[in-house]
Amino acid sequence: MARVMTITLNPALDLAFDLEELALGAVNRSRHAQLEAAGKGVNVARVLASLGHDVVVSGFLGRDNDGPFQLAFQHMGVTDAFVRVPGETRINAKLAEKSGRVTDINGPGIGVDAAQITALLSTIEQQLNNASVDAILVAGSLPPGLSLAAFSEFLTHLKATGVPLWVDTSGEALLHAIEIAPEAVKPNEVELADWAGEALDNHAKRVSATTHLHQAGVGQALLSAGAEGVIWVNASGAWQSTPPHVQAANTVGAGDTFVAGMLHGLFSQHSSEETLRFATALSAESVRHVGVGNAHANDFALLLQRTQVQRLPACSTEGTS
Amino acid sequence: MARVMTITLNPALDLAFDLEELALGAVNRSRHAQLEAAGKGVNVARVLASLGHDVVVSGFLGRDNDGPFQLAFQHMGVTDAFVRVPGETRINAKLAEKSGRVTDINGPGIGVDAAQITALLSTIEQQLNNASVDAILVAGSLPPGLSLAAFSEFLTHLKATGVPLWVDTSGEALLHAIEIAPEAVKPNEVELADWAGEALDNHAKRVSATTHLHQAGVGQALLSAGAEGVIWVNASGAWQSTPPHVQAANTVGAGDTFVAGMLHGLFSQHSSEETLRFATALSAESVRHVGVGNAHANDFALLLQRTQVQRLPACSTEGTS
Repeated sequence: MARVMTITLNPALDLAFDLEELALGAVNRSRHAQLEAAGKGVNVARVLASLGHDVVVSGFLGRDNDGPFQLAFQHMGVTDAFVRVPGETRINAKLAEKSGRVTDINGPGIGVDAAQITALLSTIEQQLNNASVDAILVAGSLPPGLSLAAFSEFLTHLKATGVPLWVDTSGEALLHAIEIAPEAVKPNEVELADWAGEALDNHAKRVSATTHLHQAGVGQALLSAGAEGVIWVNASGAWQSTPPHVQAANTVGAGDTFVAGMLHGLFSQHSSEETLRFATALSAESVRHVGVGNAHANDFALLLQRTQVQRLPACSTEGTS
Repeated sequence: MARVMTITLNPALDLAFDLEELALGAVNRSRHAQLEAAGKGVNVARVLASLGHDVVVSGFLGRDNDGPFQLAFQHMGVTDAFVRVPGETRINAKLAEKSGRVTDINGPGIGVDAAQITALLSTIEQQLNNASVDAILVAGSLPPGLSLAAFSEFLTHLKATGVPLWVDTSGEALLHAIEIAPEAVKPNEVELADWAGEALDNHAKRVSATTHLHQAGVGQALLSAGAEGVIWVNASGAWQSTPPHVQAANTVGAGDTFVAGMLHGLFSQHSSEETLRFATALSAESVRHVGVGNAHANDFALLLQRTQVQRLPACSTEGTS
């Protein structure tokens, strides 16, 4: 069992409505409406806790509507180390129609200032002093008020604690994260191409860019290519996984499930192949339904069996960066 | 100053999103998202409290997300006598686009059972024992699990307390409410026609049906005809108001504002004409913006001046019912 801290700087309450058909300009009745504590770090914590790990969740929460989070944390059995800030955590509405069409409406996040970042760092340090932590994961988008420079500085502070730092964010924030060489990042193809400065239009280029990412100081370089699977390069080698075919119902949470699966495998001393297979299969499990992946699903053994993982030959660009 | 208890059996948190344009099947970013304690009885309480009355709010609230209600009650300065039930109060999303189009998505309410109705009645009795109350208002729709028969029984219990009972609901629930002859109801034209059993396609028929409603035992019979104003029949006579012309922006809360205005006038010993004028003008004030009416608006005196109230001649059907 590992102890992991997940940090969600810009969490959300997801409000999912279940509609026959959305009629614009009218009053629609939803058969079901579920408000759920969300945010990438919270999703990862949910998976890790369900796999038996000890999880501390942190980041920023609006003081005025933290009830659903408190309940979720209690239910998940994780330690709540979120810093409360004035106001309300944003609500993201998801309007699901019978046709399968989903319309998202994302609220703005709560703005945070320098004093609140300082308070968060001191909360995190206090948690690290209480008990040793095997990994810190910073996940999700940046809240309004947190500049890219301040985010880099925040990550630098975390890296200086000596705890392996995983960062799962996107766009510009991801490029800034890569610069400080965290233990792990998981760009998609467009993001890795941006970083590499060239289109990754074939397999060899994708493997090469992921290898470069590892050589640039990222311990676990993970290229996420959705249904095409994942390329993973670390100090021991390179692997590629291909997920099993599943009926995709909802891809929200698939990436978070994958990250949690990787942390689980690595901290359980599973082999690299086993680790990648487990994370990829669990991620595939999650897209079959709303929510994160469930390793206790009846047919999970079958999903694992149908997940392909292959070791990639030593990359030709090794050592050229 | 009066003391009024408002009861909202099926309240909601209103979640208003402010969108440029709603793109279906895509991720939309809202510039603003506001979660607000709502429900008809809560709206009426808001207006009454702002007019200086002492208000007790009651009904059912989901235990798991009552934070925004607690804050609102504190801010309004009203006494919270809501019974908490397991689960979450529903959230109604309002998607406002720049074009002015508003799409509503209403969640289902929390189901209540007989034990919870009993708990609510005993909470209400306790409040009545604490301090005398000048009126009880039951407002809004019925929660899942509360049958029309159980609603009638609930109203009968309230009527038996001897406190004047106002009921502001709609459809079948309204017809059931009329049967127990409460102190006041406010049907719209369709509802009154349903009750009367005939189309109310001219002014004489509308006045006649409202008079019948009063004669059936409703102390204050109020026919609400939207922009055409209100017909009011009670033991002292009959009146009709015509609201001033205003730029309508949002009619949500207009009916609740009207009810609050009527209670205010009656308990302030204003004349019937003054009372109806005030309630009609305040309701018109409310449709100019989101939220309930504000009697402290700069031009409220002008709105009052432009609101027409006329006494109607004794109705020809008097005593024929």
